[in-house]
Amino acid sequence: MFEVESLTEYEYYSEHNRKMFDMVLKAALKLAKDLLFPIFEEMDRNPPELVNGEVKVHPAVGNIMKEFGEGGWIASRVPFDQDGEQLPSMVADMCEFIFAAANYSANAYPGLTFGAAHLIESFGSKKLYDAYVPKMRAGEWQGTMALTEPEAGSSLADISTLAEPTDNGYYRIKGQKIFISAGDHDGVDNVIHLMLAKIEGAPAGVKGISLFVVPKKRIDENDNLVPNDVAASGVYHKLGYRGCPIVQLSLGDKNDCRGWLVGEPHSGLNYMFQMMNEARIGVGLGATSMATAAYYAALDYTRSRLQGRKVGQKDPQLPPVAIIEHADVKRMLLFQRAVVEGALGLIMQCSRYVDLQKVLDGEEKQKYHLLLEILTPIAKSYPSEMGIAAISQGLQCLGGSGYCDDYPLEQYYRDCRIHPIHEGTTGIQGLDLLGRKVVMQNGRAFLLFINEIELTIGAAQQFSALRGFAHDLNATLTDLQDVTQHLITVAQQQGPEAFLADATLYLEFFGLVTIAWQWLLQGVAVQKALSEGAKKSDQNFYEGKMFTLRYFFSYELPKTLGLAKRLLDDDRLTVAMQTDFFND
Amino acid sequence: MFEVESLTEYEYYSEHNRKMFDMVLKAALKLAKDLLFPIFEEMDRNPPELVNGEVKVHPAVGNIMKEFGEGGWIASRVPFDQDGEQLPSMVADMCEFIFAAANYSANAYPGLTFGAAHLIESFGSKKLYDAYVPKMRAGEWQGTMALTEPEAGSSLADISTLAEPTDNGYYRIKGQKIFISAGDHDGVDNVIHLMLAKIEGAPAGVKGISLFVVPKKRIDENDNLVPNDVAASGVYHKLGYRGCPIVQLSLGDKNDCRGWLVGEPHSGLNYMFQMMNEARIGVGLGATSMATAAYYAALDYTRSRLQGRKVGQKDPQLPPVAIIEHADVKRMLLFQRAVVEGALGLIMQCSRYVDLQKVLDGEEKQKYHLLLEILTPIAKSYPSEMGIAAISQGLQCLGGSGYCDDYPLEQYYRDCRIHPIHEGTTGIQGLDLLGRKVVMQNGRAFLLFINEIELTIGAAQQFSALRGFAHDLNATLTDLQDVTQHLITVAQQQGPEAFLADATLYLEFFGLVTIAWQWLLQGVAVQKALSEGAKKSDQNFYEGKMFTLRYFFSYELPKTLGLAKRLLDDDRLTVAMQTDFFND
Repeated sequence: MFEVESLTEYEYYSEHNRKMFDMVLKAALKLAKDLLFPIFEEMDRNPPELVNGEVKVHPAVGNIMKEFGEGGWIASRVPFDQDGEQLPSMVADMCEFIFAAANYSANAYPGLTFGAAHLIESFGSKKLYDAYVPKMRAGEWQGTMALTEPEAGSSLADISTLAEPTDNGYYRIKGQKIFISAGDHDGVDNVIHLMLAKIEGAPAGVKGISLFVVPKKRIDENDNLVPNDVAASGVYHKLGYRGCPIVQLSLGDKNDCRGWLVGEPHSGLNYMFQMMNEARIGVGLGATSMATAAYYAALDYTRSRLQGRKVGQKDPQLPPVAIIEHADVKRMLLFQRAVVEGALGLIMQCSRYVDLQKVLDGEEKQKYHLLLEILTPIAKSYPSEMGIAAISQGLQCLGGSGYCDDYPLEQYYRDCRIHPIHEGTTGIQGLDLLGRKVVMQNGRAFLLFINEIELTIGAAQQFSALRGFAHDLNATLTDLQDVTQHLITVAQQQGPEAFLADATLYLEFFGLVTIAWQWLLQGVAVQKALSEGAKKSDQNFYEGKMFTLRYFFSYELPKTLGLAKRLLDDDRLTVAMQTDFFND
Repeated sequence: MFEVESLTEYEYYSEHNRKMFDMVLKAALKLAKDLLFPIFEEMDRNPPELVNGEVKVHPAVGNIMKEFGEGGWIASRVPFDQDGEQLPSMVADMCEFIFAAANYSANAYPGLTFGAAHLIESFGSKKLYDAYVPKMRAGEWQGTMALTEPEAGSSLADISTLAEPTDNGYYRIKGQKIFISAGDHDGVDNVIHLMLAKIEGAPAGVKGISLFVVPKKRIDENDNLVPNDVAASGVYHKLGYRGCPIVQLSLGDKNDCRGWLVGEPHSGLNYMFQMMNEARIGVGLGATSMATAAYYAALDYTRSRLQGRKVGQKDPQLPPVAIIEHADVKRMLLFQRAVVEGALGLIMQCSRYVDLQKVLDGEEKQKYHLLLEILTPIAKSYPSEMGIAAISQGLQCLGGSGYCDDYPLEQYYRDCRIHPIHEGTTGIQGLDLLGRKVVMQNGRAFLLFINEIELTIGAAQQFSALRGFAHDLNATLTDLQDVTQHLITVAQQQGPEAFLADATLYLEFFGLVTIAWQWLLQGVAVQKALSEGAKKSDQNFYEGKMFTLRYFFSYELPKTLGLAKRLLDDDRLTVAMQTDFFND
């Protein structure tokens, strides 16, 4: 669908070829099967614990970090000249899809480490790079992103961790951080926090935020690791995602915590947004992975579980059928497949934009950058929100067994609930989409997005089997433009609060259009393959794709009708509602 | 809203009065606060275990059963002449609402016991009644409903537990039962199973099912309790609802399990349906309770948690506001309130029909019976499905804290997932609604339902503040009738499988209309109260009700547009989809 081998025509990727990509994917699959999936349940049942000031995790974590370091998986996106594999994002992300489907928690450790190292590489000095990045990419040291504070969750403006300058090239750090993923553990020798803090006297709000490297242990003059006054003060007991600790950190209790500035003072938020944007697409990718694993588990169960007869077959002497034969069960499976394969399409679309952005210049580079900007909140939120719905339907396919821990569905159901929360809640994604991305550069990103979809509609119109869907998407795209125009008028006439009050619903609408586009794109790929004479062994696969496309357009896309009705409604009741009208 | 005191005009309830009802509710609240809520979390953290063939539960369970027995709570609906309290369902259900909100698992024990005793009372002999019912209502013995088997979940036709007649007035029972709530525990002296089984040589299918009393311990000739060869062979480890054991039972391993027939042979399913219909509304009531508790927990958090500034207030020097001030948080709270108070209205509506059915005769009795029949699948499924969505939004209001067990939201999120499964899955409710209830007696129940809504629309049109909502509901009711007519044509032309393929979506549509009706009914009550000069202290309450009504009509009811589009679509793709088109 995304013609990954076409990337090898660009110089940066010219040393790769399709065969190598396939080998990489095969190796990822083997690692996932051998190393990650066998402890998927075990890591959940034996969650991290804080023991004597250190977080104890599953004993396999150290080995996972080592294997991911030695195997080059942490550095898969890193350029050759930094000893990386220089893989396209499309391939590296597909490997992550496999890892996270096998064991989301386990994959979080190397995933976070890559992101933190990337941040140092991008904005830090050579000295910082040399001191930290090689160890991180080797899987010896853990990386984290340390943003959240007790009084500053979604509101980064209120960060109060303090960085006091010294004459020795470092800052003295004091503060509290909460909800830090992999924020401490005994599977590695050191933990490197990429931390937001405010330099003494910095401007108020987000403009005063700086980025620091704050290691758990610092390197002393003799090149030994010594404690850096970073205390793990708590580990949360969570609904799911239990294989990875979420840690509370206390910095500088003994006034001896040192941090090193990354880049320029007061530019921390901009730097962090690079990692954050990657992390947001990463959350969407992880949510897609988990929902995919759940879909296959549900599919497996419905094929083997015999129960009841088909509607209309009243003779109780007839043997029971596999429940996958029931139309309502097929509907539940089609829903799951529509969500997970649609979401995966979107994630790969983003990966492709990342790759093109890297190899192109000027106008073209800017185009893919803007497309990524506008798609990031969708790539984060659609798989997160709809992944939960898909997993819940997967659990439902198993009936009472889905509620019990003999099957993995209940764990997926717990694990997946983190996705609409971490790396910016769904509400925050809505504000980002409507309040920032849609209106940026006078709507340029939005127009580029519309153009991309129109190209796909044009391609689909060439195939009679797709013409109806092309027509439907075109109509819904017009609705989206009408709704957007309406909201911009609201912004002009009534100000930002009224404009953004239903941003979450707008996000949902936008997400449905985006996934419909991805399904139409898949339809085009199917029709092309069929018209070129597909192999007989692939027929069922293509038939399934076409049914899932029909499902999406018939059951999911019509949800935009209700959303459009509300978004065009001028009763701003959530703004007008007074807090003391809520009952106590 | 439902004028509970008007019931006291009927002779059956004439010894009650409003003041007494209030006292009962107050007593229920005290019991919930003192006995049930304090161990809500503890029962979850210490789930039942199978130890030496007996299920050990939280030590408080025995006391809860005793208190519920002695306090008359198990017999609250039982007539005076059977030493009950003869309370209207409206009052008894409201007490259960309070109990289940405080601790759903704890309330399951007495709730199941009432239902099982009621079944013996309704269909069993005097001898069976005397032997079991008084002990059950006293809270000394537990009651259960034992339907499900390993090969017969939703498909009761395939029940294979065997009952072999003897000359001694009992049957010899042999078989396996799974997923039996409170199916064994050490908090009581005995467990009485109301069990479905097939008498040797019975007709195949549901027509051959009989109902038996099968006690864990039977009463021997010397009035001693002796083992009855009922073995607890397993207890499930569940996602939630952990305070109550779900048990696997093995019957007659030693060929010494005795069961006593209830009523006539081969009539078991009809008898069980009485308990099942009560239990289905009971699930809806429990789901409503849980979502209500979650709503209040979320409301509480959003009032006290300070975070960020209102959209448009860019000055970071301004103090942060409570998150309830954000429009998107108000939207999430209004959603929860719309669901839980709409669902509670529906449950009380059903309770009222139960009460009227009891005191009326002839045509009128039949009318309320039919209304109950058609509303039962809605009362079961709307609170179950939308309760999950509401609780998930409640969890979302807490952000990362919602994902951690320092707050109760994660437990509600786990607990509530059972509701769309037990007592008939949502899919089964859809088939029941469309395949049975809507078409029964040539659509008579459906017409009665439409009439009830039209009465409310008529009442609402008297108030200018409600006229718009009355109009919207009327339009949606027309859509529902169109969709219903369309589906009946499909049934005639294409048969039952095509007719019922989207029964779950039809159920959802029907549910939205039903809850909109309940909100309009609440609107009428508010407008009446306001026009009669409401107290100043009640103003905020009424304002909140009107905002939530507006929310439901503006955000929820439009969801019917997408559902109608799909339900009128003639692409029967879930029927046509072949199982080998699903990818493996």
